[in-house]
Amino acid sequence: MDPAQFRSHSFCMGATPFDDQGRLDEDALRAHVQWLSSEGISVLPASASSGEGPLLSDEEVFRVWEIVVEEAAGRFPVVVANREFPTAAENIRFAREAESRGLDGIQLYPPTLGHVIAPTTDVLEAFYEDVLPHVRLPVLVSSNQATGFEVPLAVHERLLARHEHIFAFYKNHSDLMNCASAYARMAPRTTVLTGFVRLPMAFLLGATGELDHVQNLMPRTARALHDALHTGDLARASTAYARIVEAQAATTRFGQEEGLNRMPVYKGVLRALGRPGTWATRAPYRPLSDEQQSRLAAVVDRLGLAELEGLA
Amino acid sequence: MDPAQFRSHSFCMGATPFDDQGRLDEDALRAHVQWLSSEGISVLPASASSGEGPLLSDEEVFRVWEIVVEEAAGRFPVVVANREFPTAAENIRFAREAESRGLDGIQLYPPTLGHVIAPTTDVLEAFYEDVLPHVRLPVLVSSNQATGFEVPLAVHERLLARHEHIFAFYKNHSDLMNCASAYARMAPRTTVLTGFVRLPMAFLLGATGELDHVQNLMPRTARALHDALHTGDLARASTAYARIVEAQAATTRFGQEEGLNRMPVYKGVLRALGRPGTWATRAPYRPLSDEQQSRLAAVVDRLGLAELEGLA
Amino acid sequence: MDPAQFRSHSFCMGATPFDDQGRLDEDALRAHVQWLSSEGISVLPASASSGEGPLLSDEEVFRVWEIVVEEAAGRFPVVVANREFPTAAENIRFAREAESRGLDGIQLYPPTLGHVIAPTTDVLEAFYEDVLPHVRLPVLVSSNQATGFEVPLAVHERLLARHEHIFAFYKNHSDLMNCASAYARMAPRTTVLTGFVRLPMAFLLGATGELDHVQNLMPRTARALHDALHTGDLARASTAYARIVEAQAATTRFGQEEGLNRMPVYKGVLRALGRPGTWATRAPYRPLSDEQQSRLAAVVDRLGLAELEGLA
Amino acid sequence: MDPAQFRSHSFCMGATPFDDQGRLDEDALRAHVQWLSSEGISVLPASASSGEGPLLSDEEVFRVWEIVVEEAAGRFPVVVANREFPTAAENIRFAREAESRGLDGIQLYPPTLGHVIAPTTDVLEAFYEDVLPHVRLPVLVSSNQATGFEVPLAVHERLLARHEHIFAFYKNHSDLMNCASAYARMAPRTTVLTGFVRLPMAFLLGATGELDHVQNLMPRTARALHDALHTGDLARASTAYARIVEAQAATTRFGQEEGLNRMPVYKGVLRALGRPGTWATRAPYRPLSDEQQSRLAAVVDRLGLAELEGLA
Repeated sequence: MDPAQFRSHSFCMGATPFDDQGRLDEDALRAHVQWLSSEGISVLPASASSGEGPLLSDEEVFRVWEIVVEEAAGRFPVVVANREFPTAAENIRFAREAESRGLDGIQLYPPTLGHVIAPTTDVLEAFYEDVLPHVRLPVLVSSNQATGFEVPLAVHERLLARHEHIFAFYKNHSDLMNCASAYARMAPRTTVLTGFVRLPMAFLLGATGELDHVQNLMPRTARALHDALHTGDLARASTAYARIVEAQAATTRFGQEEGLNRMPVYKGVLRALGRPGTWATRAPYRPLSDEQQSRLAAVVDRLGLAELEGLA
Repeated sequence: MDPAQFRSHSFCMGATPFDDQGRLDEDALRAHVQWLSSEGISVLPASASSGEGPLLSDEEVFRVWEIVVEEAAGRFPVVVANREFPTAAENIRFAREAESRGLDGIQLYPPTLGHVIAPTTDVLEAFYEDVLPHVRLPVLVSSNQATGFEVPLAVHERLLARHEHIFAFYKNHSDLMNCASAYARMAPRTTVLTGFVRLPMAFLLGATGELDHVQNLMPRTARALHDALHTGDLARASTAYARIVEAQAATTRFGQEEGLNRMPVYKGVLRALGRPGTWATRAPYRPLSDEQQSRLAAVVDRLGLAELEGLA
Repeated sequence: MDPAQFRSHSFCMGATPFDDQGRLDEDALRAHVQWLSSEGISVLPASASSGEGPLLSDEEVFRVWEIVVEEAAGRFPVVVANREFPTAAENIRFAREAESRGLDGIQLYPPTLGHVIAPTTDVLEAFYEDVLPHVRLPVLVSSNQATGFEVPLAVHERLLARHEHIFAFYKNHSDLMNCASAYARMAPRTTVLTGFVRLPMAFLLGATGELDHVQNLMPRTARALHDALHTGDLARASTAYARIVEAQAATTRFGQEEGLNRMPVYKGVLRALGRPGTWATRAPYRPLSDEQQSRLAAVVDRLGLAELEGLA
Repeated sequence: MDPAQFRSHSFCMGATPFDDQGRLDEDALRAHVQWLSSEGISVLPASASSGEGPLLSDEEVFRVWEIVVEEAAGRFPVVVANREFPTAAENIRFAREAESRGLDGIQLYPPTLGHVIAPTTDVLEAFYEDVLPHVRLPVLVSSNQATGFEVPLAVHERLLARHEHIFAFYKNHSDLMNCASAYARMAPRTTVLTGFVRLPMAFLLGATGELDHVQNLMPRTARALHDALHTGDLARASTAYARIVEAQAATTRFGQEEGLNRMPVYKGVLRALGRPGTWATRAPYRPLSDEQQSRLAAVVDRLGLAELEGLA
């Protein structure tokens, strides 16, 4: 698949469904990919946070990849995320696995050295130079404060100048000006992907696609925002954006009040929406109690998610 | 002036010019207000950070107010900012001064207790209840992390329900979702003002005006972004937004590299643009060295500010 | 008074008592100073946070100074704190007031520019150079993250080399190594003062005195820790330190649970201990409800403060 | 080995030496363990940060354990650290490996879910309850902000009440009062271990041992501080503590100025001290340039480390 085709995709770091015995629920996964795909969303499988990648064995990760490739059936490029590995060797090994399974691209995290150690600039640059020449797939580079540190923009700029197979750039940082100037610098040179909360800003600076997790819950609304911005329909963009903000704020607040991490909440929302599968959590995440599931269903009702997403 | 008229203004916390002896430079101030006003910008005088309010005596603050009122000549509403006072009494006294000078509105900061003490919710609410009934001017309430703490949204929501003379709401917080959900909640109920970096996001959530300092340097570009969003011209919005981001990133980086706070840099930019006055700094800020001024002029050239702003 | 005498004092930023009408309660203040003094504590009056200085008028501040000087009667040096002023002129004016009232030293805060603006290194250094030559009293310089920023150690080191009337150094920073290396660098050159939580560390690095607020509640225990360390009695130091940590943790937790800032809690403790005066709060602080005061009294009982402090 | 014997040990998270080909340098490792052991330090091998555990394969980790057990020869208990695993199953598997290799205890990290996701209280508690019944070795529980989040004290308190084989508690947090009150609460109930910078504080609150990495560079000085506090020799404690603070500040500053992470600097110090082995770094860490090694040697000289440690 030509990386130029990746340019204005809305990539969703897809949730990974488990059944009541905690096993990968392949049927639910297929249905989830079909649903998102039918709404114009490209699924990035088994990622670190919203894909619960760290809770999957290598074999399970590869199986998830295969299923998504099958379900995508060429309708969207299947990009996968490396685990947060510390060494070049492990990153290369994983990229090879992705190549051999017919994937279309790979997201390369910077090296995760444990204990939130922030690699210095030289370490980051050397790491990428050790890895990139051995990866044949198109590469998405990213700097996400959620890994505990930032990759300086200058490192990514230099890599981009040297490695033609870098097809996209993603950045998330709590300093909005930091993000804004990174988007402005990178957009003329590569595809910039962003999350939905920052999308109105990033779009004006040249970001053409998204990489986020909210599409797991509201693919139609997310795609509507993407499309409305690309067609210049500000009224429709405004409506969609307000709904995404409202849904994210509500699910985040629910998690804080109930002491639940994001993915157990997301899975509870999918159950409340009646999506196929039991969407069980895997330890160490705990299942929602019946009372929690019932309170969450009320939140989903108030948001009108079923109607908005055409599921009612 | 009817507060409804404040709804889609672009308020600039105007810089305060000093002459070479460190005195208020009234002529330069008048020229600055005329320039901004002619570009469609409303000047909010003598504010805390970009107006260098803490470096002005009360008498100087009042003089700045008077000059701005004279120069505004009814073309824009003159809203002023209270100092960051700890007590209700001082806030009320200042508001009285504003009333007696014919101002159109007042921005009320939450109580600043010294040592970055974060007032608890009860203290905040009680403070506003002590102050608001004694203020007759339309009031702009704000929560700006730059004061060292946040006013919980619920406090401002309750105040808004009880006090009809609150005409606008401003919020700045490093957590973008926090800002977004505040804008979404408040926009249906009052005028929401925002800064330019967050404007694309805030506008989609119902923010109709701005409160910022970048208009001191690029009023035409700032107004262009405001207008482009309000008329739905995304291409023009994109161009203006990218210029604002680029200019802010460049001046911030210059300050960091040269060890200069923001306002000395801003005044150096105004000198480089040939704006009337010497735009001297007042102690404890230090004047830029000739070398610094020269390097800053090169930055201003690279940004093409003079051309963009019609000053070339 | 010879600054050398300040060397191993335990300075308490004394609480300021108000009566039920919110007026300065001079009798309670005198009793408070006598109590602390009788336990070997030196009172630093009307400071920014624990002295509620920002809630006092200039005249009230000066009156508090005078009363403390009278009650000290030469038994301890009376050092006062400047307000957090932005300009040299205001700092010098305040220092003059202190000189004319017979005070023994003055704590000079770095310039507070409003909106938690962090002055750059050059601004800090120039500010001190503008102020210090005009201050005749011995000067305590400090860097307290509670002002919203840090004074780099190098600035204080250069000042110390140039100004002989700097008699002491205080530093508080969340990075413990930052504090530790500052204490180690400064202790051979001047008196280092520290807070009680960091005292065991700072004492080993040469700190000879304290500057804190916990002595308002437990002067005897605080002095016991000071003395035990100075005499090398580790068992006694351990007992006293554990009590201070337990009391601080308990009062902080109480404030968090009840939504109260520190000083209203402290005053409630003084009421629970039966100290003279009503120890009312001044707006914008709110008085504790009867229920809160009763719950706080239970905390004070559990801590055994009355017995520990010889008040039972 | 009886866990009661672990009570006043000084555990060093031992550095892992590599040779010029990047392989585990077994001879250097043996010499390092002998050196530390001869100075009274207990080596905790292959830990997350200072042991570069994430850069080692499982087989290498187990080999390091075996070598340390052999060299310890019963003179100190060999406690090992689990990797930062997300699942109970992987933690149990690793603990089994430790049991089968005759180790004396195991440090159990909380679950690391990737992307610095902070597990909620329920997740943490459930995780430990899934793991602890299946671990037969004495267990050290820890809460280290360096993992990106905190384990609430209440979780560890409840675990301690239920699981007799928890033999020690470690906590590191930037809020000093948080640490202090945790030490005070836990010290009467279990062995509290702390790092050297917080040791003077923690010792007074009942901490009887240490868990740190500075002993890799200065085991004699570190042990001297431990012993001086335990024997109540404050003068000797003061000297040793000042040296540790000075050395840590100097190596940290060197790393910041040169763009080097901690372990490459530590290894450079060991080379400068002439310790056996080449102490090469493993990718993604970069080797120091000759100029960097030479500048670091000058730092080591200035600190007088060779003399202090009896290596000159």
